[in-house]
Amino acid sequence: MTVRVRVPASSSNLGAGFDCVGVAVDRWLVAAVTSLAGNKISIRRSGRLTAVSVAVEDDLLTRGFRAAGAAAGAPATGAAIDATSDIPVGCGLGSSAAAIVAGALLADAALELHLTRQQIVEIAAGVEGHPDNVAPAVFGGAVLSVRTAAGLVTTSLTVADSLELVLAVPPFPSDTKAARAVLPNTLPHSDAVVAASRAAALVQGLSSGDGALLGAALDDVLHVPFRRGRIPGYDAVVTAARHAGAFGATLSGAGSAILAIAPRERSAAVGATMIAAWRDIGIEAELINCKSTVPGATVTASPRTAHNAPLTIHKS
Amino acid sequence: MTVRVRVPASSSNLGAGFDCVGVAVDRWLVAAVTSLAGNKISIRRSGRLTAVSVAVEDDLLTRGFRAAGAAAGAPATGAAIDATSDIPVGCGLGSSAAAIVAGALLADAALELHLTRQQIVEIAAGVEGHPDNVAPAVFGGAVLSVRTAAGLVTTSLTVADSLELVLAVPPFPSDTKAARAVLPNTLPHSDAVVAASRAAALVQGLSSGDGALLGAALDDVLHVPFRRGRIPGYDAVVTAARHAGAFGATLSGAGSAILAIAPRERSAAVGATMIAAWRDIGIEAELINCKSTVPGATVTASPRTAHNAPLTIHKS
Repeated sequence: MTVRVRVPASSSNLGAGFDCVGVAVDRWLVAAVTSLAGNKISIRRSGRLTAVSVAVEDDLLTRGFRAAGAAAGAPATGAAIDATSDIPVGCGLGSSAAAIVAGALLADAALELHLTRQQIVEIAAGVEGHPDNVAPAVFGGAVLSVRTAAGLVTTSLTVADSLELVLAVPPFPSDTKAARAVLPNTLPHSDAVVAASRAAALVQGLSSGDGALLGAALDDVLHVPFRRGRIPGYDAVVTAARHAGAFGATLSGAGSAILAIAPRERSAAVGATMIAAWRDIGIEAELINCKSTVPGATVTASPRTAHNAPLTIHKS
Repeated sequence: MTVRVRVPASSSNLGAGFDCVGVAVDRWLVAAVTSLAGNKISIRRSGRLTAVSVAVEDDLLTRGFRAAGAAAGAPATGAAIDATSDIPVGCGLGSSAAAIVAGALLADAALELHLTRQQIVEIAAGVEGHPDNVAPAVFGGAVLSVRTAAGLVTTSLTVADSLELVLAVPPFPSDTKAARAVLPNTLPHSDAVVAASRAAALVQGLSSGDGALLGAALDDVLHVPFRRGRIPGYDAVVTAARHAGAFGATLSGAGSAILAIAPRERSAAVGATMIAAWRDIGIEAELINCKSTVPGATVTASPRTAHNAPLTIHKS
């Protein structure tokens, strides 16, 4: 049998939902296990994954694969993994989360670990350090992830049908570790109060489609003020998105991509204006436009046929 | 004509919804304007309002009345106000907000100011300093109030039908100003991140009825850790509520009352246990049990009959 997984990209934070809200995005990582001989892992990368240059044991596909096996108490196994992706790498679109989730799901299916989807999220969040990208990568749609006394709770958020996600992706990555390092150790209590009200506004605004609530939610005070200076053109692109009719715009994850949320009838204009604003300063960005209903990861097992059949990515 | 208003009590914060979430509670302030002669205001207080001892011009009924008139550009007017209430005063049940809203609504109707409900909220929030009690007092139910670039947005929150509010009210008030003074000037950034995720969990938990989310939401980090020591028995009462089946419990407003949110079938047991926990340390608390569907303020105008007809309070 060949096990094949397909995992979506994702955009985390959505402004005020810092480290707890994420939404699946219509770009995909597709990977297959073509052999399980020995205990060494090999990876054949294609598509956007050719930008990845880490050693195979440090590849997030490998780390997801190994973490799932270890969590289930399985002995270390080998695997020959074929993987391709059209998710821009390192741009705040959950390319890391997709790779970890793909590795974990490949291990789960190929080694018959019988992990639940919730366990996959927890294992992948352990590797990634936070759950906000891995949860939508696994479940699809918009997901809230909250650490509670009862463990990590992940819950699907309702998103009004009138809303569309518009992502502009510049051709340079953002260093997530550096983006974490710029966050301050403390915040004024009054800012924390504002941040909490805007996180509540995000959940309520997504479900109701209320533009004023979404505008407040996308104008975050916990992380964007400290990170926006690292992304050339940030202010111009966000302002352009708003002027074109978006309810607001913010960093996707820690950037470099910028996410706008717009009423559907304005989304084409919003995307065009964001691309134009970046072009004005010599940056050629890529546009991703999707609804918030992108499905989560899927796993298929099929009889092995041509060993080297190329992987293909189909959009939702 | 006699103008009469009826305004509910309210419980604000609900843990992580600090300064932005509140819910109407089934206790009432009822007030009527019986005369508008001169420009002096007189107030005849009965019920729980006999606990109020401030000068008439400083009474929150007067301040709400005057603020509404001033906002509408009306000249200062006199009024003879009759008011009664069964809302415990100064215990975190929105007795101040109810009085301000009642005064503003009396002025609106008696002086024919034609203010909208949203304007009443903004005027009353200006007097109170924050909108989280006045919004549910005006609109009823659970309300999220967020300051946005487009002004104050108030929006009704969906609350799962399975949930019930249980309030235990001790016979001593809490000094709201002192409760604000104990809040720190700064917070660790990591606490602010937790606070935001729990505010999101509150909105999502109320609408879905998810107990784990509500448990996290009611375990606030923005204000309760600094305030709970001021309320004797706080930890014992909260622990008792949880053991009896509540999803969580927290200060109502800044206290002294404690609010639990429980599945309906556990609410009687939760209330009894909370009262018993306070009784164990010699405090005889009062129980209020209600759904989250208590309606907002109502205004009625009727032909003047007996000038001194007593005001009565009818429960929802």
